[in-house]
Amino acid sequence: MGTRWRGLWLGLIFAVVAAVSPVATASEPVLWTGQWNATAIFEGGSGSGAMALSESGDAIAGTAAPLDENQFFPLTIKGRRTGRARASLDLFFSGEKVGAVDARLQDGEIRGEGALYGIPVTLIAKRPASAGPGRVLDYSPARYALQYSSEGPPALVLRPGDTVRTTTVDNEGRDQDKVWRAMPGNPLTGPFLIEGAMPGDTLVVHLERVALSRDSARMYSGRLNERAVGPGHDQTPVEGWGRGWSLDREKGVARLTAPGDRLADFAPGLKPMIGSIGVAPPLNQTIYAGDLGLFGGNLDYSRLGEGATLYFPVFRAGAFLFLGDGHALQGDGEISGQGLETSLEVQFRVELIKGSSLGQLWFEDADFVMVSGVDNSLDLALQAATRGMARWLKQTYGLNDSEVAAVMSTSIRYDVAEIVDPRPHVVARLSKADLAMIRKPSE
Amino acid sequence: MGTRWRGLWLGLIFAVVAAVSPVATASEPVLWTGQWNATAIFEGGSGSGAMALSESGDAIAGTAAPLDENQFFPLTIKGRRTGRARASLDLFFSGEKVGAVDARLQDGEIRGEGALYGIPVTLIAKRPASAGPGRVLDYSPARYALQYSSEGPPALVLRPGDTVRTTTVDNEGRDQDKVWRAMPGNPLTGPFLIEGAMPGDTLVVHLERVALSRDSARMYSGRLNERAVGPGHDQTPVEGWGRGWSLDREKGVARLTAPGDRLADFAPGLKPMIGSIGVAPPLNQTIYAGDLGLFGGNLDYSRLGEGATLYFPVFRAGAFLFLGDGHALQGDGEISGQGLETSLEVQFRVELIKGSSLGQLWFEDADFVMVSGVDNSLDLALQAATRGMARWLKQTYGLNDSEVAAVMSTSIRYDVAEIVDPRPHVVARLSKADLAMIRKPSE
Amino acid sequence: MGTRWRGLWLGLIFAVVAAVSPVATASEPVLWTGQWNATAIFEGGSGSGAMALSESGDAIAGTAAPLDENQFFPLTIKGRRTGRARASLDLFFSGEKVGAVDARLQDGEIRGEGALYGIPVTLIAKRPASAGPGRVLDYSPARYALQYSSEGPPALVLRPGDTVRTTTVDNEGRDQDKVWRAMPGNPLTGPFLIEGAMPGDTLVVHLERVALSRDSARMYSGRLNERAVGPGHDQTPVEGWGRGWSLDREKGVARLTAPGDRLADFAPGLKPMIGSIGVAPPLNQTIYAGDLGLFGGNLDYSRLGEGATLYFPVFRAGAFLFLGDGHALQGDGEISGQGLETSLEVQFRVELIKGSSLGQLWFEDADFVMVSGVDNSLDLALQAATRGMARWLKQTYGLNDSEVAAVMSTSIRYDVAEIVDPRPHVVARLSKADLAMIRKPSE
Amino acid sequence: MGTRWRGLWLGLIFAVVAAVSPVATASEPVLWTGQWNATAIFEGGSGSGAMALSESGDAIAGTAAPLDENQFFPLTIKGRRTGRARASLDLFFSGEKVGAVDARLQDGEIRGEGALYGIPVTLIAKRPASAGPGRVLDYSPARYALQYSSEGPPALVLRPGDTVRTTTVDNEGRDQDKVWRAMPGNPLTGPFLIEGAMPGDTLVVHLERVALSRDSARMYSGRLNERAVGPGHDQTPVEGWGRGWSLDREKGVARLTAPGDRLADFAPGLKPMIGSIGVAPPLNQTIYAGDLGLFGGNLDYSRLGEGATLYFPVFRAGAFLFLGDGHALQGDGEISGQGLETSLEVQFRVELIKGSSLGQLWFEDADFVMVSGVDNSLDLALQAATRGMARWLKQTYGLNDSEVAAVMSTSIRYDVAEIVDPRPHVVARLSKADLAMIRKPSE
Repeated sequence: MGTRWRGLWLGLIFAVVAAVSPVATASEPVLWTGQWNATAIFEGGSGSGAMALSESGDAIAGTAAPLDENQFFPLTIKGRRTGRARASLDLFFSGEKVGAVDARLQDGEIRGEGALYGIPVTLIAKRPASAGPGRVLDYSPARYALQYSSEGPPALVLRPGDTVRTTTVDNEGRDQDKVWRAMPGNPLTGPFLIEGAMPGDTLVVHLERVALSRDSARMYSGRLNERAVGPGHDQTPVEGWGRGWSLDREKGVARLTAPGDRLADFAPGLKPMIGSIGVAPPLNQTIYAGDLGLFGGNLDYSRLGEGATLYFPVFRAGAFLFLGDGHALQGDGEISGQGLETSLEVQFRVELIKGSSLGQLWFEDADFVMVSGVDNSLDLALQAATRGMARWLKQTYGLNDSEVAAVMSTSIRYDVAEIVDPRPHVVARLSKADLAMIRKPSE
Repeated sequence: MGTRWRGLWLGLIFAVVAAVSPVATASEPVLWTGQWNATAIFEGGSGSGAMALSESGDAIAGTAAPLDENQFFPLTIKGRRTGRARASLDLFFSGEKVGAVDARLQDGEIRGEGALYGIPVTLIAKRPASAGPGRVLDYSPARYALQYSSEGPPALVLRPGDTVRTTTVDNEGRDQDKVWRAMPGNPLTGPFLIEGAMPGDTLVVHLERVALSRDSARMYSGRLNERAVGPGHDQTPVEGWGRGWSLDREKGVARLTAPGDRLADFAPGLKPMIGSIGVAPPLNQTIYAGDLGLFGGNLDYSRLGEGATLYFPVFRAGAFLFLGDGHALQGDGEISGQGLETSLEVQFRVELIKGSSLGQLWFEDADFVMVSGVDNSLDLALQAATRGMARWLKQTYGLNDSEVAAVMSTSIRYDVAEIVDPRPHVVARLSKADLAMIRKPSE
Repeated sequence: MGTRWRGLWLGLIFAVVAAVSPVATASEPVLWTGQWNATAIFEGGSGSGAMALSESGDAIAGTAAPLDENQFFPLTIKGRRTGRARASLDLFFSGEKVGAVDARLQDGEIRGEGALYGIPVTLIAKRPASAGPGRVLDYSPARYALQYSSEGPPALVLRPGDTVRTTTVDNEGRDQDKVWRAMPGNPLTGPFLIEGAMPGDTLVVHLERVALSRDSARMYSGRLNERAVGPGHDQTPVEGWGRGWSLDREKGVARLTAPGDRLADFAPGLKPMIGSIGVAPPLNQTIYAGDLGLFGGNLDYSRLGEGATLYFPVFRAGAFLFLGDGHALQGDGEISGQGLETSLEVQFRVELIKGSSLGQLWFEDADFVMVSGVDNSLDLALQAATRGMARWLKQTYGLNDSEVAAVMSTSIRYDVAEIVDPRPHVVARLSKADLAMIRKPSE
Repeated sequence: MGTRWRGLWLGLIFAVVAAVSPVATASEPVLWTGQWNATAIFEGGSGSGAMALSESGDAIAGTAAPLDENQFFPLTIKGRRTGRARASLDLFFSGEKVGAVDARLQDGEIRGEGALYGIPVTLIAKRPASAGPGRVLDYSPARYALQYSSEGPPALVLRPGDTVRTTTVDNEGRDQDKVWRAMPGNPLTGPFLIEGAMPGDTLVVHLERVALSRDSARMYSGRLNERAVGPGHDQTPVEGWGRGWSLDREKGVARLTAPGDRLADFAPGLKPMIGSIGVAPPLNQTIYAGDLGLFGGNLDYSRLGEGATLYFPVFRAGAFLFLGDGHALQGDGEISGQGLETSLEVQFRVELIKGSSLGQLWFEDADFVMVSGVDNSLDLALQAATRGMARWLKQTYGLNDSEVAAVMSTSIRYDVAEIVDPRPHVVARLSKADLAMIRKPSE
């Protein structure tokens, strides 16, 4: 992002991060103390994060963490007041001074100018807004995104508690009438920006409705993917193999439109799901809609349908939620490289958990708590999911490591969500029936 | 195996491979033609395999395949009769002559002397025996094995159709009274030799009963295994963590004997299973009971309990079946390195499928067909399981590759059986309900 | 990239892709036939690629391939002339019509309006420019990039044959005087746009000079990286471990500034190299400077110093070359997570190979031809490098697969460039002495 | 190993573990105290290990560790004397009593009877022998082994310091005259038993001569191995591809015997090496000669030629050294699945390092110290090699973890020895020039 973007971007970010900037009253002496949503703007980028300040006499101390831009955070802040509403703030990383800002507090907002790592920087911080009553919003997409990013213009700006009713096109870009609306490659509906979402928060997305919007689907490939079969498995796909499926929503099954003799009765059950859903990636990256990671993305997990709740770590101010790539049903691993690809009607509600995150993507439905592991191999992905579930148990129930081992080693189930995208996805799952037998700490 | 073993071994093998040597009658002119169970004996080893001969005038042609000893088989046989019951047989590998044997046919048995790959060799071949009526045999183990091997003396010699009622000790070697009966390290009951089992056959094992034989179990570890969590996951196991569990067979649950406050109500459901079950490994190897592979072994798969049927490729004449390492229950992956380790009562029935094998281990129960994949990583193990299921579908239903992709990509489920042993184990699973929708070729 | 960018971007792209638009003369009847550099512009993105047209009577046929935007290319073009300088072009993917454009040819440039996959699109195509004489350009960076991308403004626009003299800061953003000039995180000098570089071309970068610009370096970490040691290797880094190294350019060695007794004489040899160098990634992605892939990036390969030549596949019109992250020296694998990090003086010359690419990154120096493999694991990365070298041998010498196997199996060497970044990097290497013994096809 | 083996085996073991049983003198009161080579013999197996006892009044205390049989060792010993030369010894594992033995000390040898883990056991312990002067022994193999094992009869029984001159056949079993002497599958010369070698010791093997014994070699395969190229790399091996190579020992190069036009001048340099060399595997296993592990085996590392010294951990009493699978030369990774396979003349000298082991295989030659890593993937193998080198540096130089990181991160090189066998093999390498700059602790 270059300098010419600066003005535009500032306006956008501040529409998002601070719906309400509370007016300071004269009788309120401690003006700097407390929580702030801070954004640092510089040529070539920007980063946002939670800032906590504490004022004591003329001294101001605090932290700014985590900024999403890179790992050279959190910063420690040491400063002193240089006037009633002015302060000089020094910024430290790992004990070393890396910047300084002259800041002014006005109308409940901090603005500062200075330098960070040798680069001129503008600091703007506002008080976190409080949530309003939830709205129900209809969104009919006019354009679709092919990447997860914080670069593009928002589809809608949401407040925590809001519900959205919208639609998704299929992976090739076709809508409920099979009309092309977007370029192929998992085109995504969104991004939805969430007011007040800051790096370090958790974005909660309730999938209240995930329904088929047409009676047809495609599974393009007539062969199993190489990542699922490895070397040395010769396949001879049938010439002109019919990739079409009809979706019988009444009976709840899918059928090949030209099945041949053997599969004439083959009718697996429908289970609509969202294949690709996620937020803007960390480190200010732009990632195409077929990839996946801590930010979500092309998760291709068959349990992400109606009734599921997803918990995303937030990496960029506003979160930037996208979704698409509906499947009428999908086996484990998405081993042909595709599910039954189709268009969907989706209704979801968003919430925010401020200042807390598992550091990992996790899900929940009526029956299970699930932790997502995405990494370079199935082994590493399973390890990531396992570590995440261990952390979740410790956060939720205060278990020690031996108790965690006793619960997980007897009760965990793993799902191989997909194995054919750039990185495999493994989900660790515990049943709510098993979890109900664990006592929570009484507070 | 050295020369001094030779006499002993011969007696053993031939008790096994040929229960009945049919007497040749004078009116039966084609003496050499047909199927033989052949064993080649030489200093430093032996190998067995199916041999097929065809006599036409003085010429004899045939194949010997596969010998279990190594990959330099199958051999092609070209020979000629040098008398009424004598023949000179030349042996070829990949077009090159690699040996020759002078053979004599007497009393329905071939005996020959010659050389193979420069080594003196004795060839003995008998007609395959036919199965008799199944017996029910009780076996109370006096000793246990710590390795999968074809070296040790048999516990029992079984015929296809026989049923065995026996017991297993726990992974530490303790029996139903918690008395030590064997060295720790997954001691195994067996080996059971199966008459007529030859390399290339499939050994079928029906687990008719898999029941707990005591009310206690242990899960030794108070932490998750490194292979399940990877680097960078610090654990602080609780000092003196109680590894004991009580098994409530009436209510069907397990409970920690000293659970602490959080887990006082934690009572996961019992699901007894056999952790380690397999046959003598390929290439005449001796593998310890904690390892696993195409031969089975430490599979640690929670669905291998009562009602499961296992299909093992046979690698050595007699098959050599072993079993042990019972678990009262186990989560996916065996991620603490153990299930709830206990002793079992087991009843199983064996059958043979002659001359046919998936080339891979597979299972079946009331609900699922399952194919086992064991390899160096989860990714490779999943690929092995996927390839095996594809092969199974083609063998069973005559599907083409695109039909296989349609069925598997919509309907497959993967289980991570275990991730903590020397090699991971992934199972690909299709429901019998889904399979029932596929039409078999009408013959 | 949104609509508001459109005008700006068009100007930029066309400064790049077509330095010369040859004027059509009246006597030149075949106006459409030939090669074009084409760019498709739409709301939410753009893509460029080589377009080949062929005119015959009123009919126009051709291909547009590969566009960088996604895999739903190449397109086939079928059209007809609707006037002297007008044509109606239909666009097909895999036999299916996916778009249509009304095009006008004026002043040697094609401009069209239409729709592709249901989206309004503007097509602009110019004739490829011819290279001019090489220039020598000095570039003193005013800003640095933290991502590989085609989004940012160019540092310089180069022509094939041009030489650039410039500098890089160290991985923390410090220059030759140890003054901070950029945010930490491998800040990159660039991007350099190359006129006429199109997807499908190869960008050649000769590193004519790679020299240290100061006498100090840092290796931040006092421990080995987890990716290099795995789980179960406890390390106790020394508190306050001196991360500073002094670089003795005269003697050509590096020394710890506070080495302690054991390492007082430890002085490994200097071998300056560029750690991170690459072009804009495929699929219009923005990737942070610590990651790597087919586009290059954080390759961390110790042979990428003075005298090396790099061959990059081009993914975006203009290529967008970046470089930084200098190391005074580095062991294989970069196993502490860092080399001796320092600032550099760099001189490089660029060239273009039009319409041809190995599809993979490769290198060359006085002694070796090297092919880069970057993938999710060392095994997969080695396989990628091996496949690439096999392809290179076939392209260069016309060897068959058995000859390739004979050469590579006897003579290949592998280097583990790095193992600690998001993806490992393995290089397959053949010596030029060995290659000199292979006869090239005589043409 | 069964009971019928017992007498035979005892004789063998005790020829090995105790060349000299010193006679106790009347004036020597402390009879039990000191080091013993102990063997426990039971039905179904045996295990040996170092035993240390300490006598104080009537009490005897000590340890027996490590026994090679399994991980349920080391044992702690607590006993008391029940007569002048009799003692009752209780055996404990992890605080729990697991056995007891009544022992008698006679003629400097302990013999006991008792039970361990519920199994009857005979304990025999002798004093370690001292080394005599080295002998030079010629061994002309009459038979070859296809497995690494401690089961077979020894080729020779060596003493530390002895030198052996012998030969190896090629991987197909052909000798210097291309005559078949063994079954294909890497037939091995050996086993050589080493007197006094006990689990926990290091066996040192100096390769004093590794020379070609004929002028021809074969590389069977006309294609690259799947493990080296992965899925999706189609190869069309040439029908009837000439697998023969001639070895020009004078000029030091190899040439294809039927090279075709392109490779008519292709003549890579000879570098004879031993492909498969190792000792009896841990856990009393029998492993085929194509596999590899901590015990060595099919290492396929091009630096294991003349001048190399190998350091093997010992797992079974007597060590059981095997070697074979000579290569005239080999590229990294053995990526066709073979080197230039040929027969060799080998001279080696053995030594023992008592009671000390890196716990890992390592090598040394004039230029490098090398640590071997064998595991399920290249990533895991590299991690094993890296951990081993870190341990070696700490043992040898007393470096702390930060010093280890400084040395290894700047100076380490990795070799991919092979990638095509059941497990990959990576070697971490440091130059002796670099190591010479590290100061050893002055003692």
